[in-house]
Amino acid sequence: MKIGVVGTGIFATDAHVPAFEQAGNIQVTAAYNRTKSKAEKFVEVASNGQAKVYDSIDEVFSDANIDAVDGLLPVDNNLELVKKAIAAGKPLAFEKPIAHDLDAAKKIVELTNKSDVPIMVLENWCFHERTLKMKELVKKIGKVELFLYQTTKPFFISKYHQTAWRQKPKHIGGFISDGGVHDMAFITEVLGDVAEVNARTSQLREQNGDIDTLNAQLRLESGAFGSFTYAKAFGAADSTLSFQIFGTEGSVVFDGNSIVLRTGPDGNDMSSETFELAPESVNGVVSEFKNFTEAVKTNDKSVIVSTPAKSFHHFATIVACTESSKKNGNTVQVSKA
Amino acid sequence: MKIGVVGTGIFATDAHVPAFEQAGNIQVTAAYNRTKSKAEKFVEVASNGQAKVYDSIDEVFSDANIDAVDGLLPVDNNLELVKKAIAAGKPLAFEKPIAHDLDAAKKIVELTNKSDVPIMVLENWCFHERTLKMKELVKKIGKVELFLYQTTKPFFISKYHQTAWRQKPKHIGGFISDGGVHDMAFITEVLGDVAEVNARTSQLREQNGDIDTLNAQLRLESGAFGSFTYAKAFGAADSTLSFQIFGTEGSVVFDGNSIVLRTGPDGNDMSSETFELAPESVNGVVSEFKNFTEAVKTNDKSVIVSTPAKSFHHFATIVACTESSKKNGNTVQVSKA
Repeated sequence: MKIGVVGTGIFATDAHVPAFEQAGNIQVTAAYNRTKSKAEKFVEVASNGQAKVYDSIDEVFSDANIDAVDGLLPVDNNLELVKKAIAAGKPLAFEKPIAHDLDAAKKIVELTNKSDVPIMVLENWCFHERTLKMKELVKKIGKVELFLYQTTKPFFISKYHQTAWRQKPKHIGGFISDGGVHDMAFITEVLGDVAEVNARTSQLREQNGDIDTLNAQLRLESGAFGSFTYAKAFGAADSTLSFQIFGTEGSVVFDGNSIVLRTGPDGNDMSSETFELAPESVNGVVSEFKNFTEAVKTNDKSVIVSTPAKSFHHFATIVACTESSKKNGNTVQVSKA
Repeated sequence: MKIGVVGTGIFATDAHVPAFEQAGNIQVTAAYNRTKSKAEKFVEVASNGQAKVYDSIDEVFSDANIDAVDGLLPVDNNLELVKKAIAAGKPLAFEKPIAHDLDAAKKIVELTNKSDVPIMVLENWCFHERTLKMKELVKKIGKVELFLYQTTKPFFISKYHQTAWRQKPKHIGGFISDGGVHDMAFITEVLGDVAEVNARTSQLREQNGDIDTLNAQLRLESGAFGSFTYAKAFGAADSTLSFQIFGTEGSVVFDGNSIVLRTGPDGNDMSSETFELAPESVNGVVSEFKNFTEAVKTNDKSVIVSTPAKSFHHFATIVACTESSKKNGNTVQVSKA
């Protein structure tokens, strides 16, 4: 598959290019970046300088030689990218979050629902082994009643902090929605959609550009409820990612490394099984490009796992949390596309 | 110190009597129970049959030979017990929760505020080594921003399930408030009072007589926020008790066994220290009776750690959670005494 890369930043070089090779035969044959010299540097790494460097996004979509476009632009460009893909009839995969606000996100869902062009949101957490395994195991614990999800870290200055659109985010929720949609993908792939939220937020670090600490209570469409904590701006702290799910007939707990399934009706009758996860599967980017390749080759959008509709929900849940926080934690319904 | 025990049930025999010996020189010299034969059986164990068995609570309070009364009646008797203690000028310690509803709890706080008679709520979690250690360590992590508190268990049928007042609880919150006030004591001794709550509840087991699963989001008076989960009615699950506190300059995490303090401004500059807790200190009942003895001997109510005012707050927070749950999770302020 021949791909044109639009937006040749850090993540394109560090994550997409290695995944193109591992996912199978994806060749970079075109590239565009607002700063052209960066695109030229990118094609050296990504295609030994063989790919064409274009002066506009439209030229990439018009290139009859490419099979699909990979979009990694700042998030407020995503709607425009989707429009161009549909107009050109060219399959598109673009990075999460789906959009910078709910209106743009809704339009993306509407447009992609009406079109047969395969359009996928690159939400790699939909493809993690841990996500797939939890989704399988949760069926074995009876009715799910409660979940506790937390991702916490101390503050680290990273290479991504230098990115202008992260420092002065145009998208709702900024730091929180950029990362939090991943976690919402994990939660909702396993437990289904979120109906309502109550949330509190704060900003601990100026460098994060926006609120960076979120604690939320989610009520799911299923009736189950639980906590979602996304907080990565503390002083010294352990880095945690844990997802505990409790049901009437057992529990499934991911502690960041492995998954423990416990089954049985109560504390007097329990059995347990531990599932170790392969470390190389954590990234999920390879799997998402395999999925995208399949959709492009079969020209069938129905095979796409991380659809715009799902990504809308991940983003809408984070947006609902920011709204609840502004309403002193009161209950806010998650918008539907 | 000579004590009269009013209400000679399981907890009096299993927890108070051993603590009387370990706390120092507390002798059971009087006892009362609605079913007199139970009181007679109790004094055999508690005093080798030496203590007097009375036919009424009033007779216990009138006994000039006793220094104080230990009350373990069903919770809806607590207000009456407090009135009798104040009328008799006899120090009283009685078991949590403070009362069966907020009105009775408020009256207890009002009456004890006006009286100099030492009156203490037996909230043993105020005396746990883990509580005291967390309270000390939390001062070292800068401004507290977030906490995550969870206590989860699979369902176990216990000897307490047979108790009539637990099966058909008269007190608000029933199962949840009976246990949850302990956890609120732990949280608030360490982090201060709760201002507002959002909560979801459910009942998984008929045997628990009332809601038995609670997930809440708490905003503290300090401005910090976090999650409080009390859920002990699942199918097979690990038993957990964990309390994570995150601040601008570090974190303190209790995992059920030990406490880890991490200090430093961010993820690049961290140091940590682990504090093991002595297992024998878990119960706290010995410490609370030492505290009560001191108050009785000095006739000074100001030395009491687990005051009615504190216990009111623990109970009022749980009550606020049950109210929020009935209001679809919307924000409810915690009542003040």
